Amino acid sequence: MVPKLWNETIEAHRHAVREATLDTTAALVARHGLRAVTMSRIAEETGIGRATLYKYFPDVEAILIAWHERQIAGHLDRLAELRDRAGSAGERLEAVLEAYAFIQHRHHGTDAAALLHQGEHVIRARRHLGDFLRDLLAEGARAGELRDDVAPDELAIYCLHALAAAVDLPSEDAVRRLVAVILAGIRPPS
Amino acid sequence: MVPKLWNETIEAHRHAVREATLDTTAALVARHGLRAVTMSRIAEETGIGRATLYKYFPDVEAILIAWHERQIAGHLDRLAELRDRAGSAGERLEAVLEAYAFIQHRHHGTDAAALLHQGEHVIRARRHLGDFLRDLLAEGARAGELRDDVAPDELAIYCLHALAAAVDLPSEDAVRRLVAVILAGIRPPS
Repeated sequence: MVPKLWNETIEAHRHAVREATLDTTAALVARHGLRAVTMSRIAEETGIGRATLYKYFPDVEAILIAWHERQIAGHLDRLAELRDRAGSAGERLEAVLEAYAFIQHRHHGTDAAALLHQGEHVIRARRHLGDFLRDLLAEGARAGELRDDVAPDELAIYCLHALAAAVDLPSEDAVRRLVAVILAGIRPPS
Repeated sequence: MVPKLWNETIEAHRHAVREATLDTTAALVARHGLRAVTMSRIAEETGIGRATLYKYFPDVEAILIAWHERQIAGHLDRLAELRDRAGSAGERLEAVLEAYAFIQHRHHGTDAAALLHQGEHVIRARRHLGDFLRDLLAEGARAGELRDDVAPDELAIYCLHALAAAVDLPSEDAVRRLVAVILAGIRPPS
């Protein structure tokens, strides 16, 4: 049993170092901007050796992408949780759209964001979210809560693009109004 | 009078060379892709000397940007014409949104597009179009045709983002449905 426990301890340690590195890097980049952050600085602030850091990640970009993947996974978990709550499909869709609009509203405008949003992992996450919205839109259409004269996959594309407007809006109230406008677009035509 | 006529002739000639260069370059890039098109090839196809071409433009990118600026100016003229037609603000807004959705639907996916859409001239054009939509939305709200519970500048941001969905849609019918969905979002809430 000892080797197994030992392996688990190493695994836990590695996980903790990795998580701490991601947190430190994200904080440094948020404070100083992408270009000002070096591997040495990250190692120092994380409290590990520079050589150790290089065993985990080849460069600052790789750390940021790993951090961003973790962020996105957290967002998708949160959205899936809202989707799986009690309530009608329309109510749950509203909760998901509002949560995603706020995610977009809060995460914009940095040089790091411009780099990260071109990544393959973002395209994958966007596709995942599109499928997810499509299924919820289809459920809402079957229940008569949402329009059924436009295919759910087309409505999902509309939602994803329209929600990106949250990036350009000046306040959280404006984001809430945006979600109301988007929802008005997908309700059954009167 | 002779010098003036002569100057006008030179001016007309320069304009014609410039226009022909833009047309040739756009056609070459559409056929072969951005990376495969050289200044020599452009000069040859336009029927001018390579040295002459360099008097007009420093490189292929500069020609493409000039071409794109001309395209955008043409699009904005067309949209302004639709805005200024007879009809209610809601009808004219619908015509403008549909025309812009089709412009987006047709112009996507090339490597040239990715380059061009980061240009300063695109940001300017987008701002111009945003102001233009805002004014039309305000007019529609005053007329009671469009919702007045959300500010026109916020609705313009919504429209611009939602219209970008046209790039991802598979058919012209899907683009028409998108416009109907967007319009449903900005009508007065029932």
